[in-house]
Amino acid sequence: MPTVQVPLGNRSYEIQVGNRLIASLGERCRRLKIGTRCAVITDANVGAKYGEAAVKSLKIAGFTPTLITLDAGENTKSLATVQKCYDLLAAHRIERKSFIVALGGGVIGDLAGFVAATYLRGIAFVQVPTTLLAQVDSSVGGKVGVNLKAGKNLVGAFHQPRLVLCDLDTLSTLPDREYRSGLGEVVKYGIIHDASLFQKLEKQMDAVLSRQAATMSAIVARCCAIKAEIVAKDETDNGPRALLNFGHTIGHAIENSIGYGKLLHGEAIAIGHVAAAHLSARRLGLGAEDVGRIRTVLQRSGLPVTLKMPGDKRDRLFAAMRLDKKVQAGEIHFVLAEAIGRTVFGQRVPDAEVNWALDQIKE
Amino acid sequence: MPTVQVPLGNRSYEIQVGNRLIASLGERCRRLKIGTRCAVITDANVGAKYGEAAVKSLKIAGFTPTLITLDAGENTKSLATVQKCYDLLAAHRIERKSFIVALGGGVIGDLAGFVAATYLRGIAFVQVPTTLLAQVDSSVGGKVGVNLKAGKNLVGAFHQPRLVLCDLDTLSTLPDREYRSGLGEVVKYGIIHDASLFQKLEKQMDAVLSRQAATMSAIVARCCAIKAEIVAKDETDNGPRALLNFGHTIGHAIENSIGYGKLLHGEAIAIGHVAAAHLSARRLGLGAEDVGRIRTVLQRSGLPVTLKMPGDKRDRLFAAMRLDKKVQAGEIHFVLAEAIGRTVFGQRVPDAEVNWALDQIKE
Repeated sequence: MPTVQVPLGNRSYEIQVGNRLIASLGERCRRLKIGTRCAVITDANVGAKYGEAAVKSLKIAGFTPTLITLDAGENTKSLATVQKCYDLLAAHRIERKSFIVALGGGVIGDLAGFVAATYLRGIAFVQVPTTLLAQVDSSVGGKVGVNLKAGKNLVGAFHQPRLVLCDLDTLSTLPDREYRSGLGEVVKYGIIHDASLFQKLEKQMDAVLSRQAATMSAIVARCCAIKAEIVAKDETDNGPRALLNFGHTIGHAIENSIGYGKLLHGEAIAIGHVAAAHLSARRLGLGAEDVGRIRTVLQRSGLPVTLKMPGDKRDRLFAAMRLDKKVQAGEIHFVLAEAIGRTVFGQRVPDAEVNWALDQIKE
Repeated sequence: MPTVQVPLGNRSYEIQVGNRLIASLGERCRRLKIGTRCAVITDANVGAKYGEAAVKSLKIAGFTPTLITLDAGENTKSLATVQKCYDLLAAHRIERKSFIVALGGGVIGDLAGFVAATYLRGIAFVQVPTTLLAQVDSSVGGKVGVNLKAGKNLVGAFHQPRLVLCDLDTLSTLPDREYRSGLGEVVKYGIIHDASLFQKLEKQMDAVLSRQAATMSAIVARCCAIKAEIVAKDETDNGPRALLNFGHTIGHAIENSIGYGKLLHGEAIAIGHVAAAHLSARRLGLGAEDVGRIRTVLQRSGLPVTLKMPGDKRDRLFAAMRLDKKVQAGEIHFVLAEAIGRTVFGQRVPDAEVNWALDQIKE
């Protein structure tokens, strides 16, 4: 079974990638030497499939779990849900040595992680990501948080999990669109850091799309390893961690300006990847052929690469970019690629060129 | 002007103790090399006295402040108020390099600090404590948070300020009862760590009660120095920082069980100090004379040392102690004194002896 170490001093932890991991959740938690009481936070969809198995495994291992089941969907990632979780944790007598298991996709991981980061000033938590997107991205690295009306992830913390279990069996039950959304982040790792991963995606896309177990085990582990390497260099996001935001400056703005839920995260950033590729060509000399390869691999993943963009939507896109957390002194910063597998962050781009890039992704 | 260093690596900061500090707030913030936009969070009482001066000083120094004025009182320390602050920060376009000034007592410092700890996953903040309690205790050390219905400070974070300004002029406008409440924490520093500070309080109580400037400057600085020394050893409260909770196990339970606001924090912990002193005598051989000295110095500070305690209130006291964050595996832990100036933490006390200690503080 592939395992990936995230080396962060006394906050180091392991990512385990394999099959049937939820059935052994309790046993794996016992090795962490944490308290007996715990809470499994999940949503209605994931809970129906895996909630009982997770709770059963924890009980067999000697833990006293309570199951907290939230509504599925991005609207759950709110301060109102956080408050609800706090009250349930207090009712279940969760103590400082207790822990939280986040069982679900990115929404549950981010929310439950934020609850763990702040309840009693921080208790332990274990990530059990059940979507491809969460397995390769949001469950690793300790960024947790919730949304405000003014924008996504505007509230949060850095709080590393004690363990991440990527159970590949959960991928088999993912709806097709959600699985493909995860590929938007997988492609990103190829672009930012690993030309051979990118080539592998080009060559083995059929195996990827059919969710072939050995292929996906290696790919999930490789993506986690890249993320771990970058996070280890810059845990609190003051430098190279920005590389993980390739495609996200425009991708987040798309999500914000058209409203959450119309496009999935991976779909929005796929469009963002294409825009960033064009900007990379114009500003850093990324080859036209490589721009085409990025567009093609995303299309073959079943992801959108263009966006309908009437004038008022373009205005809202710009406004959303200006509220991005990475804005400094009012200037929009981009991550851009010099080549596939090699990227640089902190690239200021004039508004006129941002506009030009939007033309390139206009449907 | 006394200054105290809090040595915490790249989170180190300075506590400045002196007069007319609010008037130079902007200038002092400028030395921190932080962003231009900022928010001053205060309450209606403190804001009326010092809000304008703080904002003016920041503007003169080139900052762009917005003033957020909240209701005064413990009820403000809630997640609902946190949500309100987030929305106002977003509206004011607070960015990652922006900062928050907490201008007020412990409620404002804890709340504004928690907002700073979590907005955009953490931005800088400056503490300007305006009560004696906040100056000697809550503004130093990075513990920030809010209350839940289930208990005080159940939600929070560790987030160190970049600077603490203890403006002694603010003490002169404090209501007498609130000033005396702060003395409950001042006495604590003598008990836990500094027999000569304790003697000084015994000898100079008249100067303390008349808020004599030179006396209070030295005392505030000494209390901050003791707290800084303890926090530097154990920032995230896994060991010796527990010493700061002398008197707090019972004190917090009193606050919880009789409802916030009926007793001030310093009043509740004064009663807790007496109970802990009695337990210290019984379990660690603290001399009967020293128990008497502790009771006497608290009484001379104008603080209560006994509590009315009908049967049902005693039951609620016990229940509240069991929800304390320091409960481990269901056992109540105390900080106890071997002598005035020398304390140990993590002392398990059987329920029967806790009951006996409650008899000692029964009115």
